Amino acid sequence: MLNTIGVIGLGVMGGNLALNMADKGEHVGVYNYTSDLTDQLMEKLEGQTIRPFYNIEAFVQSLEKPRKIFLMVTAGRAIDEVIASLTPFLEEGDIIMDGGNSHYEDTERRYDELQGKGIRYLGIGISGGADGARTGPSIMPGGDREAYEQVASILTKIAAQVDGTPCCAYMGPRGAGHFVKMVHNGIEYADMQLITEAYTFLKDRLGLSVEDIADIFESWNQGELKSYLIEITADILRKKDDVTGLPLIDVILDKAGQKGTGKWTSIQAIDHGIPNSIITESLFARYLSSLKEERMNAETILSLPEIELQELDKEVWIEHIRQALYMGKICAYAQGFTQYKMTSEQYGWNLPLKDIALIFRGGCIIRAEFLNIISEAYEENYSLTNLLISPYFAEKTKEYQRNMRKVVCEGIQSGLSFPSLGASLTYYDSYRTGTSNASMIQAQRDYFGAHTYERNDIEGSFHTNWQE
Amino acid sequence: MLNTIGVIGLGVMGGNLALNMADKGEHVGVYNYTSDLTDQLMEKLEGQTIRPFYNIEAFVQSLEKPRKIFLMVTAGRAIDEVIASLTPFLEEGDIIMDGGNSHYEDTERRYDELQGKGIRYLGIGISGGADGARTGPSIMPGGDREAYEQVASILTKIAAQVDGTPCCAYMGPRGAGHFVKMVHNGIEYADMQLITEAYTFLKDRLGLSVEDIADIFESWNQGELKSYLIEITADILRKKDDVTGLPLIDVILDKAGQKGTGKWTSIQAIDHGIPNSIITESLFARYLSSLKEERMNAETILSLPEIELQELDKEVWIEHIRQALYMGKICAYAQGFTQYKMTSEQYGWNLPLKDIALIFRGGCIIRAEFLNIISEAYEENYSLTNLLISPYFAEKTKEYQRNMRKVVCEGIQSGLSFPSLGASLTYYDSYRTGTSNASMIQAQRDYFGAHTYERNDIEGSFHTNWQE
Repeated sequence: MLNTIGVIGLGVMGGNLALNMADKGEHVGVYNYTSDLTDQLMEKLEGQTIRPFYNIEAFVQSLEKPRKIFLMVTAGRAIDEVIASLTPFLEEGDIIMDGGNSHYEDTERRYDELQGKGIRYLGIGISGGADGARTGPSIMPGGDREAYEQVASILTKIAAQVDGTPCCAYMGPRGAGHFVKMVHNGIEYADMQLITEAYTFLKDRLGLSVEDIADIFESWNQGELKSYLIEITADILRKKDDVTGLPLIDVILDKAGQKGTGKWTSIQAIDHGIPNSIITESLFARYLSSLKEERMNAETILSLPEIELQELDKEVWIEHIRQALYMGKICAYAQGFTQYKMTSEQYGWNLPLKDIALIFRGGCIIRAEFLNIISEAYEENYSLTNLLISPYFAEKTKEYQRNMRKVVCEGIQSGLSFPSLGASLTYYDSYRTGTSNASMIQAQRDYFGAHTYERNDIEGSFHTNWQE
Repeated sequence: MLNTIGVIGLGVMGGNLALNMADKGEHVGVYNYTSDLTDQLMEKLEGQTIRPFYNIEAFVQSLEKPRKIFLMVTAGRAIDEVIASLTPFLEEGDIIMDGGNSHYEDTERRYDELQGKGIRYLGIGISGGADGARTGPSIMPGGDREAYEQVASILTKIAAQVDGTPCCAYMGPRGAGHFVKMVHNGIEYADMQLITEAYTFLKDRLGLSVEDIADIFESWNQGELKSYLIEITADILRKKDDVTGLPLIDVILDKAGQKGTGKWTSIQAIDHGIPNSIITESLFARYLSSLKEERMNAETILSLPEIELQELDKEVWIEHIRQALYMGKICAYAQGFTQYKMTSEQYGWNLPLKDIALIFRGGCIIRAEFLNIISEAYEENYSLTNLLISPYFAEKTKEYQRNMRKVVCEGIQSGLSFPSLGASLTYYDSYRTGTSNASMIQAQRDYFGAHTYERNDIEGSFHTNWQE
């Protein structure tokens, strides 16, 4: 009997996806460039049908036509190499799926190259880490629509399920799937940074203990902030270090790494004229964190002026911080979804904004209750220009902004650094300012570079000889 | 008699540079793809030696060897086309100079291509607009060092001169010259945005008239803020509109444009792990300004909560704002020069940081008194990690930060948007925080993605099974 699907690349993610598929009744052929990972995977079987191959041709021949081949290979050149080694054995109509974190522009290039050979290509964003891959990730497929229809039954059944709905939906043509995943990761950076800043206020300004802060995050996870990242933050704060007995968070070095997708999100936004300052400030916060030695040195030179800090009422301020965090989250998602919307319009992708919010509800790192509200906002109005002006969020930010302003100002006065909360508020205020002073920028540009300006009363393009 | 230098591309910049060279005694051969601009330039001559050519071969043959050819052609493909049309007539050792706003990576590609043909290539950043080109711009040459020595006498004499020093110096190999110009433009974005925010506070929070604000900028231009951009801001505010009689600034539409180099600066920083949030927030501010229709709509939906704004003492707050602007400027230049330093280290360019500050003192858009201090800081200590910790700026920020914090908070409480002032303060506080809470980001990354973390007490890379 032929295999119904093939998986190439058996690292943690690929192996777990193969197991997940086999759990759901698929007959999975697997192949890895080196045999060790294949053998390790076979040892994990508990009755599922996974058949190992040590030769790529035999692997391909074992698959039912049209062949469905899932790549879980490190993004970059390795994917091109695997594709090159596969194509001699493929036939017209066969389907290759790239489930890695490929840049969406690479996916588009591969899509075009394979289209010329009659091979169908899907770029599939997958979020959920190793656990998600095993038990149900969030899946964002993009590319050839017909090809998607042929693999949809497999993808939807291995995906996370929320309220009976699979966290998998067709995102759009060409690189749309990997694009959606890329921005997902950018939003994840912002979400993590916002949480870190809330933690900073609780710890460094209110002086709460790690244990107390764990309780606070746990209680926040019962309300409108309910989400995976809030949940794991509480877990993290409860974890003790085996070596010192201290809270583990206290012995972790404050240098934050990154693996590229957040960076791509910022670059894409900047390149396409899309304001995504909160994601970008979160990225810069990681860059600054990595300059640990410089910061340690700077601390000895640059001191805070002597400021008398007021005693703050803890209960009151914990709620202020919760509101600031929630409003920051609203602003960050408003920027992320604007990035979807503006890019979708620029490429003519017609991204399903409502479905994006729906499939993020389960399996992925940014899964949250909150995404239901975003989904509803786009269900009510697909052409909503910005989440900030949807009725629910407009009301929420109206209610929370006063305390968010307090939190950001108190941070500034205390010398704490709140890049993502600050950028959120800046974005909110910029966006709701109908008439700004950007006229000054245009006047300056016209003054020194004759770049011209528009007027607010007469149509046309004008230049002034300012020195006359 | 042969021409000593040739100029191709006779738009405003190219024509003015040719006139500038001829003023200084050069015999200039000129060529343009279409003859109209050549003819227009010839009509402007007042005794200088500029000889027009309508055929590229004749143009090349008119030049003394090794030939020195200056391109002032629109950046992008046009430059490759001109180079392709030139090279058949060139000989080994001839020198091509690109004085346009080319991306430094394009310059490096061209440098490599021409090196194979024995032709020497210089990528030359030029700032100063049309006026600067005519009377003395700031010139940032990079590429072949020997080639630079052969054209140095011409470049230094057409450059702006400050205290007897020409605003021209060799920046480094390959694309270094265009790189320096690119970041110059990024810094310019930040400088303009900072000024715009100071203007916003004066106008929208203190309620001062445009005329009064013109006086304030004029007085600021007598002190440590003295710079071209402050000077032209005062001019701009004094200019009346011919149509309405209003201050011209009040009829200019608040949509700020951009032409790409600021965007490149942000992308390069992000791609290379360099925090340049102030430049990037200034870029995002322009992007947001261009969403004018959305902002006008949002204004009707998102309102400021009713806040009782305090009456502010105008004299006191004008000085607060001046200090905030100066400190913002310090932070923005600290980021820009960090971008020079980190990129220089990554590429092994050995950028002359002191000279960069020196040649920015005249001719270019960001020229300012302040650059003398930066130059001195690097003269004292070439390996200074960040301008913020140089003795002068450390003292200055210590003195000004209290009022800067007040200005930013007052802006936040008043619902005004201060992206660049806010990002400046955030950067300052992040940079001077030796021990941050970025440990939370690392803990989260390890929790959901097994990305590992370092500890602050034991060497090595660690992973925790957080759910156990």
